[in-house]
Amino acid sequence: MKRMEPLKQLISSEEALKRIHKSITPIERTETIFIENAFGRVLTEDIVANMFVPPFDRAAMDGYAVRAKDTYGASSGKPRTLKLVHTLHAGESSTKTLGLGECIQIATGSPIPKGADAVVMVEFTERKDSSVNVLEPVRAGESISPKGEDIKKGQVILKAGEQLSPAKVGVLAALGKKEVRVYAKPRVAIVATGTEIKEVGSVLEEGQVYDVNSYTLNLVVDKNGAIPVRVRAVQDEVEELRGVIEKLADFDMIVFSGGSSVGERDLLSEVIQSFGEVIFHGIQIKPGKPTLFALVNEKPVFGMPGYPTSCLNNAYLLLVPAIRQMARLPPKIERTVKVRLAKRLISPSDRMQFVTVRVANRQAYPVFKHSGAITSMSEADGYIILPTNANVIEKGQEVTVFLFD
Amino acid sequence: MKRMEPLKQLISSEEALKRIHKSITPIERTETIFIENAFGRVLTEDIVANMFVPPFDRAAMDGYAVRAKDTYGASSGKPRTLKLVHTLHAGESSTKTLGLGECIQIATGSPIPKGADAVVMVEFTERKDSSVNVLEPVRAGESISPKGEDIKKGQVILKAGEQLSPAKVGVLAALGKKEVRVYAKPRVAIVATGTEIKEVGSVLEEGQVYDVNSYTLNLVVDKNGAIPVRVRAVQDEVEELRGVIEKLADFDMIVFSGGSSVGERDLLSEVIQSFGEVIFHGIQIKPGKPTLFALVNEKPVFGMPGYPTSCLNNAYLLLVPAIRQMARLPPKIERTVKVRLAKRLISPSDRMQFVTVRVANRQAYPVFKHSGAITSMSEADGYIILPTNANVIEKGQEVTVFLFD
Repeated sequence: MKRMEPLKQLISSEEALKRIHKSITPIERTETIFIENAFGRVLTEDIVANMFVPPFDRAAMDGYAVRAKDTYGASSGKPRTLKLVHTLHAGESSTKTLGLGECIQIATGSPIPKGADAVVMVEFTERKDSSVNVLEPVRAGESISPKGEDIKKGQVILKAGEQLSPAKVGVLAALGKKEVRVYAKPRVAIVATGTEIKEVGSVLEEGQVYDVNSYTLNLVVDKNGAIPVRVRAVQDEVEELRGVIEKLADFDMIVFSGGSSVGERDLLSEVIQSFGEVIFHGIQIKPGKPTLFALVNEKPVFGMPGYPTSCLNNAYLLLVPAIRQMARLPPKIERTVKVRLAKRLISPSDRMQFVTVRVANRQAYPVFKHSGAITSMSEADGYIILPTNANVIEKGQEVTVFLFD
Repeated sequence: MKRMEPLKQLISSEEALKRIHKSITPIERTETIFIENAFGRVLTEDIVANMFVPPFDRAAMDGYAVRAKDTYGASSGKPRTLKLVHTLHAGESSTKTLGLGECIQIATGSPIPKGADAVVMVEFTERKDSSVNVLEPVRAGESISPKGEDIKKGQVILKAGEQLSPAKVGVLAALGKKEVRVYAKPRVAIVATGTEIKEVGSVLEEGQVYDVNSYTLNLVVDKNGAIPVRVRAVQDEVEELRGVIEKLADFDMIVFSGGSSVGERDLLSEVIQSFGEVIFHGIQIKPGKPTLFALVNEKPVFGMPGYPTSCLNNAYLLLVPAIRQMARLPPKIERTVKVRLAKRLISPSDRMQFVTVRVANRQAYPVFKHSGAITSMSEADGYIILPTNANVIEKGQEVTVFLFD
């Protein structure tokens, strides 16, 4: 029977992040999706404009299409009077050619009639029946959006690797594209281990607790550009763990929770060593020390701590960057706020410590109870970091709070 | 035939936001959903804990359950030797009661056996066959998470109106809840008007352009906690607009794009006046002036400008706060960055001006072309605001960039 051994060779969180970064391969799989589902997705190829936008010279304002010369010298005291020969509604184009001293009423977006070279805004006109007084002169081209002003045919308008925002999807729509080719979202299997873990909705027996980590991990994975799939919790048995990893061969990443602590039944590390490479096991942080990262057939495998707060904290710290790198998304932008610490904090630890806090009245109130307590996270707005070389932070000292989503 | 009239009674964007805020009723409809879908949703009721978490006293560390007294005086030079009487795996509970001088091997999370009142961490022990040397004393309660440490039965653990984060969903999971009651997402109809607007994927005829706004609005609505439904573009005809508004009675909000400019066919304002109340029509901003907001049977109706950049800009500025208020979400947190302006900017306008910029090398490069050009937005990282009282911003001056998502 194997004895319990404490974790050895703890590494720093920076080193852990560096090793993860080196180990992740950005996804190569692609798929074609409708543009209405494309927010946040990543282009696989440059988008070359297949048309001009706008496709024709059009009115940039509501008003009257004119020959600019006909307006020269106009003023409110001495208006130029033009003859209204036609009225164009949006989407209508005129077959008439504008003659000398004539104008055509035009709505924003309508094609500029032949013969016209400017639009007088309605604000600078007066109309009487079929004649229009122009109160200010316009120069040629005024209030016209020329063909291709927005996008030129043949132009590379979006680049491979760009993440699609609403405006970029708008560009695809402007080009009439119904679909777009993007990188597939990584599929991430989430596996809760441990005989004591029961599915929510079932009845607990003595010594059992509900599965928390699958749910928190599920949401974090989903939010960061991957597809989470929760897999039924497995027993911590060598054969079962090995079987699960083999069964999940189609996934891009596997995330175990529990099973990476030092108890003799925490066999994930051993199982993986038999057919993969453990990249690290144990990090100098609190909470979250017993975290494992490995490659099995080049596939990243995380062994997250079983404690809900340790697990979720490390999901934010380590799993999010890994998933985003694989999904080809830019690093998550941290939101921080600088406030004063409401209470003296002591870090007796040689590990970098994450202390969850609630922010109120421009102060940070520590709410961290215990790494097993999910309320350490649920009652917090974010966390502060106590470095290993600063054992005490005094009350009233300014701290940077990293805010949760 | 109605004449074109310029918009009158322009109001400031602050006033527009104030009027919108006053007009929106937070949604009352509720629904019950699975907790795995609950990220970002809003609780309709307090969550009262129906159980203790943890449900029993449990080991907070891997190690040995002991009677604290048996370890008093222990040191590495003078260890206390205890008899190992049982080994507990995670999820197992012991039926044995711990006797004097005895210990039970225990994994993190396992129930504390009767008779034990502390856990010695494995790091502070040495094991030889069935005897364990304890190298440091522990006090009663050490390395034990007592029943209810995390959550106490009967405690209000989450409050009505709270938005669910991964950690808060974790709390629901810890209580074994499979489902949760939340406010329904508002259903928002998005209607593109204008005869010149064609659906993507179709072939354009002379004078026509593709529908851009439905797609950008769709994504913005979806991202901010509501359910967008795109409705086929309608002609700008009185009867058709009225019919559409009546047909969309089941929606919580209607957003038109186009149809709120001053052209004689821009009839939305008139149609609405006949059976609703126009709250404002015209805002002192650039782009985005021809924006309408109304209440029809107490239902908010937006008339967004037809120009893609004006439409999307106003979606961020006005529609997002409206939707979030209706969905009971907190206001969106703006991300800003302070950089230097790369180029002198002149605002000839009496309207507050939004100038889209790209941020690079700690400088803001204006990329705004025209409010009809979607590339004014797609090439930008965010925008800066030129107030009406500052007509010029010099090159090199510090500006605040409001970043897009």
